[in-house]
Amino acid sequence: MSAQPPLLLALDLTGTFVFGLNGALTAVRATRLDVVGVVTLGMMTALGGGVIRDVLIGSVPPATFQDWRYFALAFGGGIIAFALSRRLDRLEMPITVLDAVGLSVFAVIGASKASEYGLGVGPAVLLGVITAVGGGTIRDLMIGQIPTVLRSELYAIPALVAAVITVSALGLDVYGLPAALAAAASCFVIRMLGVHFGLNAPRPPGSADTGREGQPR
Amino acid sequence: MSAQPPLLLALDLTGTFVFGLNGALTAVRATRLDVVGVVTLGMMTALGGGVIRDVLIGSVPPATFQDWRYFALAFGGGIIAFALSRRLDRLEMPITVLDAVGLSVFAVIGASKASEYGLGVGPAVLLGVITAVGGGTIRDLMIGQIPTVLRSELYAIPALVAAVITVSALGLDVYGLPAALAAAASCFVIRMLGVHFGLNAPRPPGSADTGREGQPR
Amino acid sequence: MSAQPPLLLALDLTGTFVFGLNGALTAVRATRLDVVGVVTLGMMTALGGGVIRDVLIGSVPPATFQDWRYFALAFGGGIIAFALSRRLDRLEMPITVLDAVGLSVFAVIGASKASEYGLGVGPAVLLGVITAVGGGTIRDLMIGQIPTVLRSELYAIPALVAAVITVSALGLDVYGLPAALAAAASCFVIRMLGVHFGLNAPRPPGSADTGREGQPR
Repeated sequence: MSAQPPLLLALDLTGTFVFGLNGALTAVRATRLDVVGVVTLGMMTALGGGVIRDVLIGSVPPATFQDWRYFALAFGGGIIAFALSRRLDRLEMPITVLDAVGLSVFAVIGASKASEYGLGVGPAVLLGVITAVGGGTIRDLMIGQIPTVLRSELYAIPALVAAVITVSALGLDVYGLPAALAAAASCFVIRMLGVHFGLNAPRPPGSADTGREGQPR
Repeated sequence: MSAQPPLLLALDLTGTFVFGLNGALTAVRATRLDVVGVVTLGMMTALGGGVIRDVLIGSVPPATFQDWRYFALAFGGGIIAFALSRRLDRLEMPITVLDAVGLSVFAVIGASKASEYGLGVGPAVLLGVITAVGGGTIRDLMIGQIPTVLRSELYAIPALVAAVITVSALGLDVYGLPAALAAAASCFVIRMLGVHFGLNAPRPPGSADTGREGQPR
Repeated sequence: MSAQPPLLLALDLTGTFVFGLNGALTAVRATRLDVVGVVTLGMMTALGGGVIRDVLIGSVPPATFQDWRYFALAFGGGIIAFALSRRLDRLEMPITVLDAVGLSVFAVIGASKASEYGLGVGPAVLLGVITAVGGGTIRDLMIGQIPTVLRSELYAIPALVAAVITVSALGLDVYGLPAALAAAASCFVIRMLGVHFGLNAPRPPGSADTGREGQPR
């Protein structure tokens, strides 16, 4: 990841920080954990997706274990969330927004890193999605909840869109900062529209309720 | 996996498809998920065991990320299960049968691949079992259930038998399609007998109920 | 792990055995599992932390898959726990003590192995902690509980202390059996003090109860 353009690196680090914040806040809300648990959960959320990606493409030790900045930002996000947990509780919307930033950036970076390592189109797209949703999935498993990616509000689909755009741009040899930003922006916009309108992907035919839900979670 | 005999490859692909179907159906029954969740869970069930095996033996990226047929069949199984979830709900027995096919084939293929990669007898057997039960275990964790392999009806033992036969045949230099089919058939028969008679492995001495259960789950 | 000094190897094997025992006993208490489930859970607890460590540092197949003694001791611990589950139930304190031994030894061995593989100070410390708490975390996820490491009684912190001492000793070139034992002993003492006094790390400001809990779990 050393040769990343500065803006992409900045977004990647931002994504790590906000996922750390978000994971720790989720921990505070969902269940009674001590400071170690809260910070650990923040770090798992922030670093988990990238670690799974790196293990799957054979890039071990994972990048986040080799660059102290990821580690520090994930840790910092967790600590801040712990300290301010009462106040941040009221900041639901900013946190949702920042989470969408993380989702978008991680999908792009995951897909492009997988392509760099020689994976084909389909696998690279899949790894983009895994990078984006992996950390949150670990977080949810740890606190005993059905992972968000399985149950709500167009969470995986925007990541999929970003990964497809990224891999397409790479295939057409037009990948660069503008393409990466366009891919991330697409994910971000779709995700925020989903949150705003409470949209969900279709449910199975026999299911109790379908489509819209009363309020975004 | 390129040099697999056609019948074994066909069984492996069949196993992938039925595990995708089975994982997605489990998702539909167990909890309310949208189409993304149902298909994702189907794919995790179908591909999870092989991915864990490949990560553990150092064969990354995992085989299923490099051969689009696995991916397509897992996805197809998930989509079909989603679309037909109402009708398939009544097909419990065929699905149990197909699940046993997947279990059997994956145990054989997992054990033989681990042996190819130079693992000893014990580890190769263990990896056969992990390949067979890994996907279903991920599925159960994701929907918040105690994994089937831990709790019921001779699920791990038939896989263990198949893996032992496979590794023994390899050791005796008589491994080939007949041995592979014999190993898979042993697993299949034991598993189906377990389901039919509602057999369980012994429970701990102090446990409330032991042995038989009223009905197969 | 071939060049380990005999005492350290003995402790590592002891840790594996007691984690197998402990994981299986937890299984017996927490939920109704058959013998396969109980032993499987014991083995996951005993071997899980080391497997995660080895996957993350790229040492695959994992060490525990290549040395039958780890495997045998994990299995033996699980079987013994299953057979004696009624009686061992009353031996809560010895089991807590043995669990602390496993935690201590695994933290030291995990951190030193990660350093051997060229990881920096921070990552090596982190891998020591992951090795120590990984198996128990898998165990808790499998039986549907919030992992111990997230919720109680100074579990991760003593492992962190042991890993820091280990990596520091390696950095100062004074690592050897005495340093390893000192690191493990520090972890053990802190952990046992935490258990004895029912100490917990601080909880978030807004949390219902803070600090002490009535009784050690």
